[in-house]
Amino acid sequence: MSPRFIEHQRLVLPAPLLLDGGAALSPVEVAWQSYGTLNDARDNAILICHALTGDQYVAGRHPVTGKPGWWERMVGPGKPIDTDRFYVICSNVIGSCMGSSGPASRDPASDTPWGMRFPVITIADMVRAQVALLDALGIARLHAVVGGSMGGMQALAWAAHHPERVGRALVIASAARHSAQNIAFHEVGRQAIMADPAWKGGDYYGARGGGPAKGLAVARMAAHITYLSEEGLTAKFGRRLQNRDAKTFGFDADFQVESYLRHQGLAFTDRFDANSYLYITRAMDYFDLAEPHGGKLATAFARSVATRFCLVSFTSDWLYPTSESRAIVHALNAAGAPTSFVELESGFGHDAFLLDVPALDRVIGGFVGEGA
Amino acid sequence: MSPRFIEHQRLVLPAPLLLDGGAALSPVEVAWQSYGTLNDARDNAILICHALTGDQYVAGRHPVTGKPGWWERMVGPGKPIDTDRFYVICSNVIGSCMGSSGPASRDPASDTPWGMRFPVITIADMVRAQVALLDALGIARLHAVVGGSMGGMQALAWAAHHPERVGRALVIASAARHSAQNIAFHEVGRQAIMADPAWKGGDYYGARGGGPAKGLAVARMAAHITYLSEEGLTAKFGRRLQNRDAKTFGFDADFQVESYLRHQGLAFTDRFDANSYLYITRAMDYFDLAEPHGGKLATAFARSVATRFCLVSFTSDWLYPTSESRAIVHALNAAGAPTSFVELESGFGHDAFLLDVPALDRVIGGFVGEGA
Repeated sequence: MSPRFIEHQRLVLPAPLLLDGGAALSPVEVAWQSYGTLNDARDNAILICHALTGDQYVAGRHPVTGKPGWWERMVGPGKPIDTDRFYVICSNVIGSCMGSSGPASRDPASDTPWGMRFPVITIADMVRAQVALLDALGIARLHAVVGGSMGGMQALAWAAHHPERVGRALVIASAARHSAQNIAFHEVGRQAIMADPAWKGGDYYGARGGGPAKGLAVARMAAHITYLSEEGLTAKFGRRLQNRDAKTFGFDADFQVESYLRHQGLAFTDRFDANSYLYITRAMDYFDLAEPHGGKLATAFARSVATRFCLVSFTSDWLYPTSESRAIVHALNAAGAPTSFVELESGFGHDAFLLDVPALDRVIGGFVGEGA
Repeated sequence: MSPRFIEHQRLVLPAPLLLDGGAALSPVEVAWQSYGTLNDARDNAILICHALTGDQYVAGRHPVTGKPGWWERMVGPGKPIDTDRFYVICSNVIGSCMGSSGPASRDPASDTPWGMRFPVITIADMVRAQVALLDALGIARLHAVVGGSMGGMQALAWAAHHPERVGRALVIASAARHSAQNIAFHEVGRQAIMADPAWKGGDYYGARGGGPAKGLAVARMAAHITYLSEEGLTAKFGRRLQNRDAKTFGFDADFQVESYLRHQGLAFTDRFDANSYLYITRAMDYFDLAEPHGGKLATAFARSVATRFCLVSFTSDWLYPTSESRAIVHALNAAGAPTSFVELESGFGHDAFLLDVPALDRVIGGFVGEGA
């Protein structure tokens, strides 16, 4: 049996969503997918939180790209997150563009797309929308919340803000706060989008010629480098030329790595909204779990002692290096929360959490499945 | 006595410059500066090679920016590169925009700026122009050639291609070939420039509204991150806010690091030509000293045994990490060239070669000054 896949599961929240920035967002639509079956005790739910450019299509065929879901290898019957045992939920974060409310959604006040009038949201706001979804589904407590990268930030926010609803938190290749360097890379991407005249201050929906595809492609190219590693790029491309025997002494994509990057940039613009990219990167920049606690991360987890944590990092991840996971582990230890931590060997860089790293499968399967 | 500073020293080469790409560039103008006095034996000349966005104004006041020269701290009377003893030369690389021939120069065939009709040049071509300059100055042999980053590539090319003319080669924070990751970052910058409609295929000179300043600023922002280090950014900015007590929940430069990066991008567009940025990054991407030798770097240095080498790297430089310098040292050792190597502790990242690293002063002073 393949995992159950229902397109276009959507929920309109029954009440406005009160955001960290002070606004009350309404209406709020949450697009989500589920895989597996919720048991009678309603205690076998696993929430998977997606990354910056991810979406709710964890497994099965993606309705837009036609490709397999982004964690197909991890989620399904008999897989590490076993849909024969667990009811797996993934919802598109608010601010995004795959069905949940975001800048491309309609602002009821003006009956036009929000554009940059959409309120700035935070990681905690994304989690608030997920909490409302679980409330609507009658799920009081998650067996586990799982996420990589920005998904890991959401998992940490779940455990910090709603510890009574989280049995296990699995945080992969993530951080408790966005570093200066990561803010800087995001700012480059935002400036690339905003520098594109087709951005039009965010009001490009329905515009002739479309949105700021060129700026968004540049943003994606810059970000994509940070998802990989020097050793991975060297192994995959090195200085090999693209379909030619010699350098052209021109500005074509002579090198395979150039051709690859250009493709990554272009392909991204087909599936992602530029304004959503602005909003979600902003949410990540703003993320700092320790900030409301005078910089003391352990205090953020003071109520999280009944949640079991597992932190995973990858050796070649320079975007969210092992030191970030270690800082979280130290805080959790100080808070007295049961915590395990593993640094996995991989040359794939940050993207390792999405790729073929068998040791990750074992860690995830063990952590979410044990004693369940 | 301050170093002698003569503005606008320029040489028009007496013959066309035969380029690696096959073209013969003519006319070729080389803009250069000198500091100190050439001795009667004409054997006290030190050539300093500048980096990607550097220029010939090593010391003294920069005529465009009004700021001190880029290596003011290293070059002058009594300084590590002592102009009381040495005749220091620095020329603007061809392809650049500070007086040497580049895409903004006039193409005599059309009597319009070259734009993208300027031939693609290489690091070896830059060195060819420097060789012609030294010929014109009657300097047969350099006491030393010195350079950081792309300047180090030129120093390596000097030693590999013209070993009989190089007494010492000092190569700082550099590499014998541009890595896949570095090509990727350059390609992001080029795409940012080319995505700007004001680029106009490179024919923006004299255009109303000027050139692709927004694209060039984005390119510079992305590159600038690679010149620093995570630890440096964290120490300098961390997550501190810019002139405000709380996040604005907007897209202003809330964080100091954002404000700093935006400033870096904007300031750069005042002093640098976007097409030059395309050409010089291309030259760096193409650089691979071992390529003509079947990948054997030692073979590139087979004739360099009478040149003394010194390689310097910095611990936090992730653009040209220590491993790149080590690879050069291994090749030089295999070639039998006298070589010293030092990795210096610094948190400044790649830019350390331009900044206050006293140990670097000692290494440079010792290497260029000893036995001279």
